[in-house]
Amino acid sequence: MAKRNIYLTDIPLDEARATLQAALQAAGAAQPMGGERIPLAHALGRVTAQPVQAIRSSPHYHCAAMDGYALRADSTISARETQPLRLQLGESAFAVNTGDPLPADTDAVVMIEHVNQDHADGLLIYAAVPPWQHVRLMGEDIVTTETVLQVNHALRPVDLGALAGCGHAQVAVRRRPHVRIIPTGDELLPHDQQPGRGQLTEYNSLMLAAQIEQAGGTASIGDIVGDDSTALTAALQSALDDEPELVLLLSGSSAGAQDFSAAAIAQLGEVLVHGIAVRPGHPVIIGMARDLPVIGVPGYPVSAALTGELLITPLIRQWLGLSPPQVKPVAAVSTQKIASPLGDDDYVRVALADIDGQLQATPLGRGAGVITSLVRADGLARIPRFHEGVDRGDSLQVTLLRTRDEIQQSLLIMGSHDPLLELLATHLRLGGGGRLVSVNVGSLGGLLALRRGEAHLAGTHLFDPEAGRYNTSFVRRYLDEKPAQLVTFAHREQGLMLASGNPLGIQSLGDLRRARFINRQRGAGTRVLLDYLLARQGVDSREVAGYEHEEHTHLAVAAAVADGIGDCGMGLRSAAEALGLDFVGLAWERFDLAIPQRFVTMERMQALLETLRSEAFRDELGAQSGYRSDATGKFVDH
Amino acid sequence: MAKRNIYLTDIPLDEARATLQAALQAAGAAQPMGGERIPLAHALGRVTAQPVQAIRSSPHYHCAAMDGYALRADSTISARETQPLRLQLGESAFAVNTGDPLPADTDAVVMIEHVNQDHADGLLIYAAVPPWQHVRLMGEDIVTTETVLQVNHALRPVDLGALAGCGHAQVAVRRRPHVRIIPTGDELLPHDQQPGRGQLTEYNSLMLAAQIEQAGGTASIGDIVGDDSTALTAALQSALDDEPELVLLLSGSSAGAQDFSAAAIAQLGEVLVHGIAVRPGHPVIIGMARDLPVIGVPGYPVSAALTGELLITPLIRQWLGLSPPQVKPVAAVSTQKIASPLGDDDYVRVALADIDGQLQATPLGRGAGVITSLVRADGLARIPRFHEGVDRGDSLQVTLLRTRDEIQQSLLIMGSHDPLLELLATHLRLGGGGRLVSVNVGSLGGLLALRRGEAHLAGTHLFDPEAGRYNTSFVRRYLDEKPAQLVTFAHREQGLMLASGNPLGIQSLGDLRRARFINRQRGAGTRVLLDYLLARQGVDSREVAGYEHEEHTHLAVAAAVADGIGDCGMGLRSAAEALGLDFVGLAWERFDLAIPQRFVTMERMQALLETLRSEAFRDELGAQSGYRSDATGKFVDH
Repeated sequence: MAKRNIYLTDIPLDEARATLQAALQAAGAAQPMGGERIPLAHALGRVTAQPVQAIRSSPHYHCAAMDGYALRADSTISARETQPLRLQLGESAFAVNTGDPLPADTDAVVMIEHVNQDHADGLLIYAAVPPWQHVRLMGEDIVTTETVLQVNHALRPVDLGALAGCGHAQVAVRRRPHVRIIPTGDELLPHDQQPGRGQLTEYNSLMLAAQIEQAGGTASIGDIVGDDSTALTAALQSALDDEPELVLLLSGSSAGAQDFSAAAIAQLGEVLVHGIAVRPGHPVIIGMARDLPVIGVPGYPVSAALTGELLITPLIRQWLGLSPPQVKPVAAVSTQKIASPLGDDDYVRVALADIDGQLQATPLGRGAGVITSLVRADGLARIPRFHEGVDRGDSLQVTLLRTRDEIQQSLLIMGSHDPLLELLATHLRLGGGGRLVSVNVGSLGGLLALRRGEAHLAGTHLFDPEAGRYNTSFVRRYLDEKPAQLVTFAHREQGLMLASGNPLGIQSLGDLRRARFINRQRGAGTRVLLDYLLARQGVDSREVAGYEHEEHTHLAVAAAVADGIGDCGMGLRSAAEALGLDFVGLAWERFDLAIPQRFVTMERMQALLETLRSEAFRDELGAQSGYRSDATGKFVDH
Repeated sequence: MAKRNIYLTDIPLDEARATLQAALQAAGAAQPMGGERIPLAHALGRVTAQPVQAIRSSPHYHCAAMDGYALRADSTISARETQPLRLQLGESAFAVNTGDPLPADTDAVVMIEHVNQDHADGLLIYAAVPPWQHVRLMGEDIVTTETVLQVNHALRPVDLGALAGCGHAQVAVRRRPHVRIIPTGDELLPHDQQPGRGQLTEYNSLMLAAQIEQAGGTASIGDIVGDDSTALTAALQSALDDEPELVLLLSGSSAGAQDFSAAAIAQLGEVLVHGIAVRPGHPVIIGMARDLPVIGVPGYPVSAALTGELLITPLIRQWLGLSPPQVKPVAAVSTQKIASPLGDDDYVRVALADIDGQLQATPLGRGAGVITSLVRADGLARIPRFHEGVDRGDSLQVTLLRTRDEIQQSLLIMGSHDPLLELLATHLRLGGGGRLVSVNVGSLGGLLALRRGEAHLAGTHLFDPEAGRYNTSFVRRYLDEKPAQLVTFAHREQGLMLASGNPLGIQSLGDLRRARFINRQRGAGTRVLLDYLLARQGVDSREVAGYEHEEHTHLAVAAAVADGIGDCGMGLRSAAEALGLDFVGLAWERFDLAIPQRFVTMERMQALLETLRSEAFRDELGAQSGYRSDATGKFVDH
């Protein structure tokens, strides 16, 4: 057995991969899978286990390539337009359809359109026919023994056709590598059960099984094992007994859970790596037990997904004889400063927008628990080890998670978020338009993003007390050099979101003095409106307990009230009702879309505006509680 | 019902598509499929039928983000490094693991590493803890009612995780469109049966079903129907009774077969298009019957595959709510003159080579029956209507059939073809190398291709009678300006391939005067050798009957002899034995690889040379009848 290096602190990804490969080599488990013969009808996407040779020529006999008459070419030498030659049907000429075999002693076909038949079954020929005219010679497509397909080739529809055409009804393909997945963690519940307080849904197994399936392997998911060393060792033992190609131990979320995994692997084999220098994802364990690889996958979902991408999917491909997927990162400009841990490869999920031909990358949520950041991401930016991060405007290397075309068809809206922007996105998609991608940075943040050329449009609901108008003065102030158009999205009802039943009996802003408030972040339109209304009512913000507690969306404020973190927050009627809260209306505000002039005529923006103005969308919007659609789609003078 | 245009002559593809769309609209069959709810575990790759909102926040309670102790932040204000605060465990501080819910009346977590415990369950705290430190707030990932996924979204592994995380165990996905396939043709046999003379294997159904499956639909294949109008109409009727989304009538190869299809459609509905201006593939029929679309697919396999790509796959995607695949053609230089029918979009299968950063496109077999041309193709060049073709050196628009990376990892060998180049390709692939793509143009053709920069290397076995040596003088003559290295591939035995049992008793070249010969094409090394040997024996080529009958490969000559087209040909012992022919050896020749000097040091070429010189390859090569490997891999001085 080759010497193994054992690492118990974070090591770089490449080193971890090399350690795993050396261990696989030593165990004789690095080679592609053996083959199994399966019917062609089930072979799409499977990978050939050996080169495939033709076992029958195609065509396997000389056949007519046209509908007409087969004859001997040298019998027609005397035929002339002015002096037709007469052949007797059934003796020296024979009717054939395309695909028919040439009758004995014939070597050419004359097309039915070029001859005439007389009443006594005589065939009149008007020109000499060259040998092998309109004949598909045996083996024209392929000759028996020729190689049709190489080894390690993923079968496509045309490959299946070619295999059938040269005599195969079955094909030898590599067996699918099998992965046994063992989820662990006391707090976890299968995803089809309803979790109580303190219970979390276990879905990493579902996600990793799908990654494995997508890469060409198969996965089976065992029952969830509690944080119990004996039970986990027993589960690992039983998984190894099945002789899969790989076992995954999925950790729960607690730090202790990883220790159970490591202990179980050490009990039955050897831990080779404990921790790789990748974020999110670093608490990965790599081990070998009974000559089979065992990977301990961290519990946070983004970490788990990344471990699948970086370590597990490449193994599946290796066992299928496929080369690692070639993913060339593209360059994008970071719209924000990103701090990054010095010692790790840092994978940052980003939204991408193609602005004036330049890809702009905006980081999404960084938390390893925020799976939606991966769902929403257009790309993964990798900030390599020994880099402290990037500044706004720096170049980033981004691996695309969508096709370049999809990204080019997308519109990025930054700024304030309205939940019904998703309704607009739905209508846009159903009408065949591209994606509308939304990044929430508050109204002011959106206008600044437009000024810097980081987004295609911005959602804004900024009230200017001096002008007594929404948005217009802000657009003039922040977008003076790059003129923008304002289009109304909707009027929305803002007010106080209160715990269900309104136990504190709050009726107005004055009552905030006796309640714990949940505020919105600085620059948010709702915060601007609140400050205006507080000032008008003569309430000093310092009197409002919780004024410093900031959340970033209407729904986050509503959730905090629903969960009793605060008694009250300011936000949309729709958000309050969505979470079953009471609501006291304070104002109707106008939520506009700011669109830089140069983007208004873009095809995808025109599609968006058309959707916004469509009766179907406006009707559905106007029917929502707390929304009015009478101005929806109208340009705003400013 | 909208007005339909009926075309009975070839019309452009776009017009055919528009006609079909108008008919689908009129029949209410242009819309995406309805939804069905399925478990997440089966939903990978399926397409959402509606936007999906969270039905549970994630996390659904405030939980500890670290292992440690939960406490009230405001109780810790007085804690100092020098003056630790003591909290009582179980009263004012509570042990929590990551993921645990925060106990009532706590709002922060202090990490286990930052505290000390005394013997009386007292917890010593050394710094004030800010509120919500190390707490994952309810809804950090997603808040109930937020939109997680949009409609018409193909589900990826992370999407499944996110759906499970926010409370879904099932998801509403679009039903897969179903296609009924009816193969027709008297001469056709299912692909798992052994065809006799005059019978052809039916595999278009297999290929189209796989295309449909790959696009996200399902297909069921009916029994083959003979060329019988009543039977075909009955089969169509029965398929329509099933109410699939689409019926395909696959024509046999004869011209008459299409008429049966058209008649059956007309019997039960309406033929809208008969013939589109696309080659190969033009005899396509589009019709509607009982408000369902029916497509008549031409019988030649390349035509059938192209019909699938151009007409059927886009329909499946439309019914799934997906936009048509965006395929941006790339520019490549044509290495040959290509004549093209003026009235049609002409789809030419090409091999591609990246030479000095420029894609070179070499057309493969043009016949619509040559399915292997599609299997081997790296790309499809489209020569649009109203173009007569392109000249050598002209730019072509090519849609890639492999990834750009795969093409960039490939080596293109032109020139003479040796069947064992496929063995080298196999060893190269098994060693993790790229593809070795072979285009057969004869030895001289290969050297000329190298001179023009169209290939990476060339196979050559050209004997120079004056020099008494192989290849060297030709490389000097043709590649003087771009110096090339010669590397020996193998020594091979050339001779006369004779019908099994050698009925004419042919023993030497002199006997060719009384046999029908099958020759190789001008410029082929075997032809050069033959001419030299004939001259040495004093045989005049004009005395050899069939000297003008040219085939392009050893196997094609062997196949022609095996099938009795000729009595004898010249070629490799290996080819003769592969087809069960007799063989009279005449000479051992050296088959070399010519490699332009500037390509020798390329990484993939080095991988090729390493494979060529490997013991495993040389042993397997040397064990083949008619081959010697003692010089394999050696550079040749010239």
